[in-house]
Amino acid sequence: MPTTLPASEFRDRLANVRDRLAAADADGAVWFDATSIEYLTGFHHIQTERPVALVVTDGRVEITVPRLEVERVEPNPRIDAVHSYFDYPGGEPIATVAEAIAELGVETVLTDSDGAPGVMGYEGPALSEFLDVTEHDGWVAGMREAKSDAEVALIEESARWANLGHRHLADLTEPGAHPATVSQRASLQASRAMLDTLGSEYAVRTRADGPVHAGYISGSETALPHGHTPNERLATGDVLVTGATANVDGYYAELERTMFVGEVGDEQTHYFELMVEAQDVAFEAMGPGVSVSHVDQAVWDYFEEQGVADLARHHVGHNIGMDGHEPPYIDRGNDAEMRPGHVYTIEPGLYTDEAGYRHSDTVAITADGIERLTYYPRDLESNVVRE
Amino acid sequence: MPTTLPASEFRDRLANVRDRLAAADADGAVWFDATSIEYLTGFHHIQTERPVALVVTDGRVEITVPRLEVERVEPNPRIDAVHSYFDYPGGEPIATVAEAIAELGVETVLTDSDGAPGVMGYEGPALSEFLDVTEHDGWVAGMREAKSDAEVALIEESARWANLGHRHLADLTEPGAHPATVSQRASLQASRAMLDTLGSEYAVRTRADGPVHAGYISGSETALPHGHTPNERLATGDVLVTGATANVDGYYAELERTMFVGEVGDEQTHYFELMVEAQDVAFEAMGPGVSVSHVDQAVWDYFEEQGVADLARHHVGHNIGMDGHEPPYIDRGNDAEMRPGHVYTIEPGLYTDEAGYRHSDTVAITADGIERLTYYPRDLESNVVRE
Repeated sequence: MPTTLPASEFRDRLANVRDRLAAADADGAVWFDATSIEYLTGFHHIQTERPVALVVTDGRVEITVPRLEVERVEPNPRIDAVHSYFDYPGGEPIATVAEAIAELGVETVLTDSDGAPGVMGYEGPALSEFLDVTEHDGWVAGMREAKSDAEVALIEESARWANLGHRHLADLTEPGAHPATVSQRASLQASRAMLDTLGSEYAVRTRADGPVHAGYISGSETALPHGHTPNERLATGDVLVTGATANVDGYYAELERTMFVGEVGDEQTHYFELMVEAQDVAFEAMGPGVSVSHVDQAVWDYFEEQGVADLARHHVGHNIGMDGHEPPYIDRGNDAEMRPGHVYTIEPGLYTDEAGYRHSDTVAITADGIERLTYYPRDLESNVVRE
Repeated sequence: MPTTLPASEFRDRLANVRDRLAAADADGAVWFDATSIEYLTGFHHIQTERPVALVVTDGRVEITVPRLEVERVEPNPRIDAVHSYFDYPGGEPIATVAEAIAELGVETVLTDSDGAPGVMGYEGPALSEFLDVTEHDGWVAGMREAKSDAEVALIEESARWANLGHRHLADLTEPGAHPATVSQRASLQASRAMLDTLGSEYAVRTRADGPVHAGYISGSETALPHGHTPNERLATGDVLVTGATANVDGYYAELERTMFVGEVGDEQTHYFELMVEAQDVAFEAMGPGVSVSHVDQAVWDYFEEQGVADLARHHVGHNIGMDGHEPPYIDRGNDAEMRPGHVYTIEPGLYTDEAGYRHSDTVAITADGIERLTYYPRDLESNVVRE
């Protein structure tokens, strides 16, 4: 199974962008968004106050970076020239971008935004202070929605290591254990296994950390969809809501389970089973050509039928890939349609005053149906951690 | 030492904002930026495609959140009313905000941005489609630059746990160890010590993870200021560039060291000593009323004097607190002035073809000088890890 994107992916993406350029009758396009730049070139960086800008013309791919990124971007085989400014705010990143564009002899320029985003106190100027630009809003965002087979394969690989991380979570769970320590230990063990298994095939992506993250929130914090990990040891009867993923060349699957420490009560069993059934409702409703609103509505109808719609706090899920959340969102108010290559999290949840119940599985839309990429057991018995 | 912000901080911040409102002759102000909302109310959330908006008037503090955050924000004692929409894109977050503003009878409205930021595929609408607004760009960003004594105390507390994490890093380092595993184990051990030491005084802030992060990049990756952790075991003679911090009620210190595995060569010693001396140059140059450009220039002059300016890749440092990087930046091209309450990282670096040399210390500007908050030893002998 491949663990890095093949070079052909980047050729296809650049060709796609150049087709759009031609269709728009433009000479060049600019991106300031870090994820878009990574998508088009494979050069990944964290968006900070130091702008990075990519320029693509019919014949050239050039980038402007702060001095500290020069040696990291230079070996990139898809980038023809690297321009740099020393640092921010003393350097002149946008003037440098404008100069690079002028040297390319480009006249009609499209851009994803009129200058770099205002991150960490970055304050401009606009690119339009230097040249005439028009925004090409959404090109790469649109391209990213449907994943290629190669991208789906990376998400599938992520699901495998997420599964291992999740197994370690379950194995380390017992009354008296600290939920933060269990989380960190499971991440450490699964990361090490992934690094040792993939060896030279592993795409180096993390800084001072491992590639797998597995962990959970516990007890009453699970009643909050965005709850935190409390500083309280686990006790028999606790509900856990987990999460596990792995960074595979910048792509992520999402695996979440509701687990129980030691034993499960009747009310807990009731809501758990309703939640699992809601996932099944979504799996059955979804597929190529289906509107996302239909899937969200099907789960909502099921919750209403069961008299638990007041315990729902959010829609069914979202597309996923390079970002944790990506559009389209599986939401009743969204007119988007599921298409082959979309990869969705299916995570309907129920939240009582005491606890939350949510699994999340990652599911690819195929030409004629769906393919579940996460495969950790969903049933109750597999998710009660007994001594 | 306090480990959470006192309530008086939020009273002061709200009073400050209300003074600005009065000075601007406005009835209300809106924030969509997650960090600003956290700064003003203590309600922290991750900025996603689901908008959150805070409205402050002379008499009220109201918030609009997606349904899934309602139970998490309701107990907040500083927020008078919680409005919600079910989810995005089906819900109408901006209409909900506009309605809340209308119900407050507010006419002149200032906002940090004309609608929520375009994160994770969020697509608007603008707030100005519903009512007349003017941008109050930079209020909270400006307020955040100089930290109160209570804020500095949290950063100081962060430095303590960063120090412990760093000690574990050093203790776990040996030839043959995996740099990712050492990083994760040091984070785990220091997190557990922090959680067990602070007990009920610990401000719960993390999800499926611990509060301390300590780790390093190694070998030739250190030659890149933003290098990664390679999938290669440590070898005698390797250079390590570390990083350690801890989340203390949302505040962070930054501690970085250059370390050597087993032994250190003459060339390595040379660049290490120059880098430590450059830090000393910055410590001596900085203080209240000093321009940041003066401090950056002093280090640059030192590097030129020593004939190594071509090995510098970035400026000397940045303000720090709630975000990893905050303005002002210590940069030759910046006319900002150091003021009491600013907390700076001092991290001049040198990068050869083989390795990088950078310590980072966190230093507060006081009324009459500076106070170093990080205190891990900086000298060479303390940073050569011998068996």
